[in-house]
Amino acid sequence: MAGGTNRRVLLARRPEGEPLPSDFRLVEEPVPTPGPGQVLLRTLWLSLDPYMRGRMSAGPSYVEPVGIGEVMGGGTVAEVVASENPDLPTGTIVAAYGGWQTHALSDGRGLRRLDPAAAPPSTALGVLGMPGMTAYTGLLTIGAPKPGETLVVAAAAGPVGSLVGQIGKIKGCRVVGIAGGAAKCRFLTDELGFDAAIDHRSADMASLLAAACPDGIDVYFENVGGAVWQAVFPLLNDFARIPVCGLVAHYNDTAVPDGPDRLPGLMRAVLTKRLTLRGFIVTDFAAQAADFRRDVGGWLREGRVKYREDVVEGLENAPEAFIGLLKGRNFGKLLVKVA
Amino acid sequence: MAGGTNRRVLLARRPEGEPLPSDFRLVEEPVPTPGPGQVLLRTLWLSLDPYMRGRMSAGPSYVEPVGIGEVMGGGTVAEVVASENPDLPTGTIVAAYGGWQTHALSDGRGLRRLDPAAAPPSTALGVLGMPGMTAYTGLLTIGAPKPGETLVVAAAAGPVGSLVGQIGKIKGCRVVGIAGGAAKCRFLTDELGFDAAIDHRSADMASLLAAACPDGIDVYFENVGGAVWQAVFPLLNDFARIPVCGLVAHYNDTAVPDGPDRLPGLMRAVLTKRLTLRGFIVTDFAAQAADFRRDVGGWLREGRVKYREDVVEGLENAPEAFIGLLKGRNFGKLLVKVA
Repeated sequence: MAGGTNRRVLLARRPEGEPLPSDFRLVEEPVPTPGPGQVLLRTLWLSLDPYMRGRMSAGPSYVEPVGIGEVMGGGTVAEVVASENPDLPTGTIVAAYGGWQTHALSDGRGLRRLDPAAAPPSTALGVLGMPGMTAYTGLLTIGAPKPGETLVVAAAAGPVGSLVGQIGKIKGCRVVGIAGGAAKCRFLTDELGFDAAIDHRSADMASLLAAACPDGIDVYFENVGGAVWQAVFPLLNDFARIPVCGLVAHYNDTAVPDGPDRLPGLMRAVLTKRLTLRGFIVTDFAAQAADFRRDVGGWLREGRVKYREDVVEGLENAPEAFIGLLKGRNFGKLLVKVA
Repeated sequence: MAGGTNRRVLLARRPEGEPLPSDFRLVEEPVPTPGPGQVLLRTLWLSLDPYMRGRMSAGPSYVEPVGIGEVMGGGTVAEVVASENPDLPTGTIVAAYGGWQTHALSDGRGLRRLDPAAAPPSTALGVLGMPGMTAYTGLLTIGAPKPGETLVVAAAAGPVGSLVGQIGKIKGCRVVGIAGGAAKCRFLTDELGFDAAIDHRSADMASLLAAACPDGIDVYFENVGGAVWQAVFPLLNDFARIPVCGLVAHYNDTAVPDGPDRLPGLMRAVLTKRLTLRGFIVTDFAAQAADFRRDVGGWLREGRVKYREDVVEGLENAPEAFIGLLKGRNFGKLLVKVA
């Protein structure tokens, strides 16, 4: 692989609240040359995910922050275009963590070979990748849905929520999705088979949700927080389980919110309703990867699980797309088509 | 059993905030006569427990409220003094739910025979009863303490907290108790073998607790809430487990507290630290009763578990004793010696 330009999106400064385009900087550098044991990856697809907001801040989170001037991290699907590693010949398609750049070096660790004949490679970033495994492990391990129970999931048209709801249907639950706008709500009921969908932009979201959950809520898959949580909370049944997967409504928060203080009320409900709240990230359940790929891969082939992608063309558009992601502008798994 | 007087403590009105003596009324009625299949129980010991505060209010809780003018409910140890039930001859000593009164009728359901030779009957209301089983099931099932972990328990000189801490020591944990006053703290370290004890009345409780937990907190057995929770929260380690057993600091709350709103911060910690918060009441774990009595009964006989009782003489003193219980005035399991 001789020469060429590596285009990279760096974190220029830490966002205060909502990220701005000027928090990022696009730079061009020479494509690096693989050393012994290394391969050069050309990025085909870059995944954009809400957790990346946490990595842009210096505060404590479950992943180390990206340094100022460093390339933004991110999951990728890539092709080996130069190889000094006999296990990874050129032309191999892999899932990687190559970041927001057109090219990356790798020593092969953490790469997963993909078979483009088995499934479109981009699914390794969505329904068959980190978001899918997040849905599968969090719902089944913590949510433990039982037939006849009511499952509510927010951000339901996104890659995690849409799979949570579809697995809930497979497990025999009544599934209610919450999403932003009529088109996404129609997608949930008409395409994915959800029992009901609530537009969180409705002024009367709380009463619509209550009407859609006549038997209360047994599992709430929390990946939003904010007003959705407030609508869900009074509907929780005794022994309800709440996998806490994300809090995208709060990722741009810059201050402790005003009162009243809802913490004692939450703790009282945890006690009297015997709720289980448990946070997780997908890597906590790494041991379930084979189960996940077997089950969700099978459901996908059988047509019992569907997925939707929202594709943005060109690495230079990644910052704007990411900013929109935090506002719910994407419709389906947000991917940047890089190559 | 001919005649006599049944002294009973009724709920005269629902307390607003902290209960007052005038919220209760002592009445005298004729002792009832057992019908076919029934027995007459003479109360020997009445248990006073924080959960009773919830039963005095009309709001939703996990037990039905006591009606105005009804006798207050409560666990008792009693003697069968008249019997129309061949399975329960006079002289039998039982654990019952006889309430705040000197006599009660029973059809035998829910009674548990006690062997006064095996353990003092009063322990059926404490270390070998509901409080003990609360400690055992909540700590082992939800807290799941592992050797070398740090366990913190509040109200640590009470019947639940003192057993939580002692089981934690048996399981190989570093155990830190929080209690009110120097005498209780000395009891925890000198009598019960806790590694450290913190007086929650200290102005610098939070820094004392941090110093006593150099490796953070892996299990926090929550039965208090309030300022203790605030001190514990920043010290929680990744994957910490929090059995939520009680919130005695809040039982007299009459309004939603002012801000700031700590709920989003809690949820963020649940997510990033992958905390588990789970509420429970002892009846959720009824299936573990035999395990509990075998294990704690054995530890008691071996001298590995100790207990302390705080005895008040006379049913007429139950209201005042209960009011004091919510303020932490008792030192050990609070019992009323009725007969």
